[in-house]
Amino acid sequence: MKHLARYVPILDWGRGYSRETLTNDLVAAAIVTVMLIPQNLAYAMLAGLPPQVGLYASTIPIIAYALFGTSRTLAVGPVAVISLMTLTAASSVAAPGSAEYIAAALVLALLSGLILLLMGILKLGFLANLLSHPVVSGFITASGIIIATSQLKGIFGIPAAGEAIPELASTLFANLRHTNLPTLLIGIVSIAFLFWTRKGLKPVLTATGLQPRAADLIAKAGPIAVVAAATLAVVLLDLEERGVKVVGDIPQSLPPFTSPAFDADLWRQLAIPALILSIIGFVESVSVAQTLAAKRRQRIDPDQELIGLGAANIAASLSGGYPVTGGFARSVVNFDAGARTPAAGAFTAVGIAVAALFLTPLLRSLPIATLSATIIVAVLSLIDLRTPRMIWRYSRADFAAMAVTIATTLLVGVEPGVIAGVALSLALYLWRAARPHAAIVGRVPETGHFRNVKRHKVITDPNILTIRIDESLTYLNARWLEEFVSEAVAEHPRARHLVLMCSAVNSIDASALESLEAINHRLLDAGVRLHLSEVKGPVMDRLERSSFLSDLGGQVFLSQDQAFGYLTSGTDEGEPAQSNDLWMARGLI
Amino acid sequence: MKHLARYVPILDWGRGYSRETLTNDLVAAAIVTVMLIPQNLAYAMLAGLPPQVGLYASTIPIIAYALFGTSRTLAVGPVAVISLMTLTAASSVAAPGSAEYIAAALVLALLSGLILLLMGILKLGFLANLLSHPVVSGFITASGIIIATSQLKGIFGIPAAGEAIPELASTLFANLRHTNLPTLLIGIVSIAFLFWTRKGLKPVLTATGLQPRAADLIAKAGPIAVVAAATLAVVLLDLEERGVKVVGDIPQSLPPFTSPAFDADLWRQLAIPALILSIIGFVESVSVAQTLAAKRRQRIDPDQELIGLGAANIAASLSGGYPVTGGFARSVVNFDAGARTPAAGAFTAVGIAVAALFLTPLLRSLPIATLSATIIVAVLSLIDLRTPRMIWRYSRADFAAMAVTIATTLLVGVEPGVIAGVALSLALYLWRAARPHAAIVGRVPETGHFRNVKRHKVITDPNILTIRIDESLTYLNARWLEEFVSEAVAEHPRARHLVLMCSAVNSIDASALESLEAINHRLLDAGVRLHLSEVKGPVMDRLERSSFLSDLGGQVFLSQDQAFGYLTSGTDEGEPAQSNDLWMARGLI
Repeated sequence: MKHLARYVPILDWGRGYSRETLTNDLVAAAIVTVMLIPQNLAYAMLAGLPPQVGLYASTIPIIAYALFGTSRTLAVGPVAVISLMTLTAASSVAAPGSAEYIAAALVLALLSGLILLLMGILKLGFLANLLSHPVVSGFITASGIIIATSQLKGIFGIPAAGEAIPELASTLFANLRHTNLPTLLIGIVSIAFLFWTRKGLKPVLTATGLQPRAADLIAKAGPIAVVAAATLAVVLLDLEERGVKVVGDIPQSLPPFTSPAFDADLWRQLAIPALILSIIGFVESVSVAQTLAAKRRQRIDPDQELIGLGAANIAASLSGGYPVTGGFARSVVNFDAGARTPAAGAFTAVGIAVAALFLTPLLRSLPIATLSATIIVAVLSLIDLRTPRMIWRYSRADFAAMAVTIATTLLVGVEPGVIAGVALSLALYLWRAARPHAAIVGRVPETGHFRNVKRHKVITDPNILTIRIDESLTYLNARWLEEFVSEAVAEHPRARHLVLMCSAVNSIDASALESLEAINHRLLDAGVRLHLSEVKGPVMDRLERSSFLSDLGGQVFLSQDQAFGYLTSGTDEGEPAQSNDLWMARGLI
Repeated sequence: MKHLARYVPILDWGRGYSRETLTNDLVAAAIVTVMLIPQNLAYAMLAGLPPQVGLYASTIPIIAYALFGTSRTLAVGPVAVISLMTLTAASSVAAPGSAEYIAAALVLALLSGLILLLMGILKLGFLANLLSHPVVSGFITASGIIIATSQLKGIFGIPAAGEAIPELASTLFANLRHTNLPTLLIGIVSIAFLFWTRKGLKPVLTATGLQPRAADLIAKAGPIAVVAAATLAVVLLDLEERGVKVVGDIPQSLPPFTSPAFDADLWRQLAIPALILSIIGFVESVSVAQTLAAKRRQRIDPDQELIGLGAANIAASLSGGYPVTGGFARSVVNFDAGARTPAAGAFTAVGIAVAALFLTPLLRSLPIATLSATIIVAVLSLIDLRTPRMIWRYSRADFAAMAVTIATTLLVGVEPGVIAGVALSLALYLWRAARPHAAIVGRVPETGHFRNVKRHKVITDPNILTIRIDESLTYLNARWLEEFVSEAVAEHPRARHLVLMCSAVNSIDASALESLEAINHRLLDAGVRLHLSEVKGPVMDRLERSSFLSDLGGQVFLSQDQAFGYLTSGTDEGEPAQSNDLWMARGLI
């Protein structure tokens, strides 16, 4: 049971479910539902999909996550960045609005779900590490800029298209003379009012005597008021006649059952976009889930989160949705509204399903400009200009990775942006990993301590060269080790002993072992003996499984002090002492 | 001048060139020339190219390397593995033997040269680290098996084709009934005699009173004797009439001037193969050069080697050749024969050019079977079955990378083999990097030392949780750190202080900093203060460029001992002491 509960967390929290928890969860669900309706419509439109798809994607996927996810309060559904990535990926195989396009979005959700599920089962969550913080942060900022720019078309009531800024900006600019003034007015007023509900509404509500927390929650429902007001304005002022585009007829339906196409060609074309979208979604979702869990000293399990998000996306593909993930805004509202368990999510799903079934006729005259305004206001908070400055101050390498991600995303597109950022981060990491810390050391007078000869006054012996290695030896730095040693030996022509001080070496992989063997043989050719000192227990255990220790020209010393003492005493002229005996004396074998 | 000499090493060794060095170099050149003639013909044939291309590739490229390379004794030219990779890459765009095929080989050499040159100029040699020793070793063994199998067609006198073993074996097997018996006889005798010149000839020569070194060098010329004997046999016994295939007419010419095609499509198709081929060639060449340089306490500069090999390949593309690199066998012969400077290589180039101009008519009746025998005997030494066993004993992860490389190379092909090996090595590395060493530690009684609570009897305080981190904090393990901390805190509900002991942390990148900030805020939410201890100077300098230290809920302590003493004394109830002041007292800022 306990084992099963790890994979189906509902078995864990479901047993302790009380009436009080139910009340908390129901209140949270009601608030989140009201907040989510306009957002879901808007994100579906951003993804190039009919508005109801956004509602569907906020129902069954939430329930699937509630069954398998480990966060108690994460709210899963359509989010801005994933909607943009869906648009980019699906546009590459079909025209937005077409039946093939909606089918492509379903396939994308299915592939994304399968990829996440597989990563979860194979415990491959660590691959998400490849997305460093600067890359993710830069990518989200750039995506926010692209989304905001693309939504200007809704505000101006003109067409615009393009995956990246240059194309978007030029089509927008070319069509600017077709601007529809009533649309522009609705757009600007919607944006202004949405901003005001964010910042200005709460103080007003508090002034009327409301509790701050209640005022905060009511302010969160601001978007639905804007939606209602804009819709009313369109109907009352007959603005459709004046060229204001509206959402139009939305079918009244519960989420339908859909089966994604099994088309090998389509799957191949969408595989890489689905992979990138999945990992971005996972990284964002986990970071939100971790932040919320920590507030209540709860824990989430990232590998199980992959399974939860995988289930949610598979559910989306089977219920007329599109790719989903845990969203920051909706999760925070859910948490702040007092949600205690994933049941709150399930109640939200029911609320949205009810809306899809009964409220959609009311949305017929909702102007597109208001949805664009909703998106713009939501994504402006994604654009983070503070982090680039902070990262610039902290690390130029990290800043470079971020700058390349932002520039490539803005100028080329979202997938190339992520790939460029990941590739540059990895290249910079490999570059640094190829140059680990190491120092030639000598003995601090009157002590057994050894320190860098460049930084301290230390005692050295021209016969003996001691190199302290400050990192584990792996294939990424094995070649560096060979070069460092040969350079050091070439610069110390009198050296007859080389001691590698391994106090910071936690592991030696097969490539590094091969390099150590090559170094040993090259040094023997040059008349120099290689010794090791301060080798850790597990490293020594492993070395004994190779022939390195028996081929070693010198010995393995327990401590650097012992090595220095022994080699300076001149007893090294004869046969080397039995290194393993010395080592075993340490009692660690 | 000194600066220039770094990039044009001839300026360095050229000045001290003496008559004695000249003699040494001339003798070495003569021996290497004789040994290389049959090998160059054979490798060109292996690459699917006319035999003279092998000779051309051993002339101008050697001189280009002599000008820019840093190894004194490396011999550059066609080698077996690169010939196989050329065959694979060029076959993908043209039929072997066609004019397009020869043109593709030239483009491959040019691209390879440009890639190497660019990597050298941008100091990107570290990217070669991605090829771990098990991957390279496995790839070369698998390539050796493929080459040996493919050359059985020459021994049996039957056609066979295929990039990987399954196809090669099945075509060989299907054609076995067409075996030409005289060809088979020549092939088997050639193989037997070539093996004998390797092992049996030297003792015979020594027995006749020759110096061992001279005997060794004469034995190296064995292949040319086999070539002469086989050619004579074909002519005298009229074996061409009996269906024995021969090399045929070879144009008598110095290396021609060629200009590789500037065809964007062709370049795109060959770019990835050229990249893989370049890096494999570079890794092999550097390892040979390093081994030889170390024997005379000389050094090579890997970034300059990239430039040297790049120049050699560009030269090959301009002089009717194909991709080249530093070869193990030819370099060892050059070294053993007493070569002192790259001038020996230049003399070899002249020797081969003379052979191409005057000796080619003598090679007309050289049987293909003998060339196949030359290749088989040469590549059998590449097949290394000892290393897989050693690596299996030493590290299962490294063995997995090697096994996947061997299996993919044999069953799918050379490029997928390299890619699979590199990808798996990197994935395993990332997997390990995501799980660094860390331990919850406590104080060893009566000391200031802190040790792992799981391994030692130590003093802990339920209020204080101390985690020692044994690696630098990077984006690859930042997420792990968050999870490790949240798990530790969840398991120690009474903890009110968390101390991260950073004695082994050499650096903290921007992602890890972001994680530390997130940890700090999450801990504050949970009522726990985060402290750091034993932060290294450069790490502290960098942290001060961020807002982390001012946001830190706790303090930065000089030593873990101090942290433990301070936090257990109960003075922590009030305001935290000024962390920076404490730290500055250490005198390291």
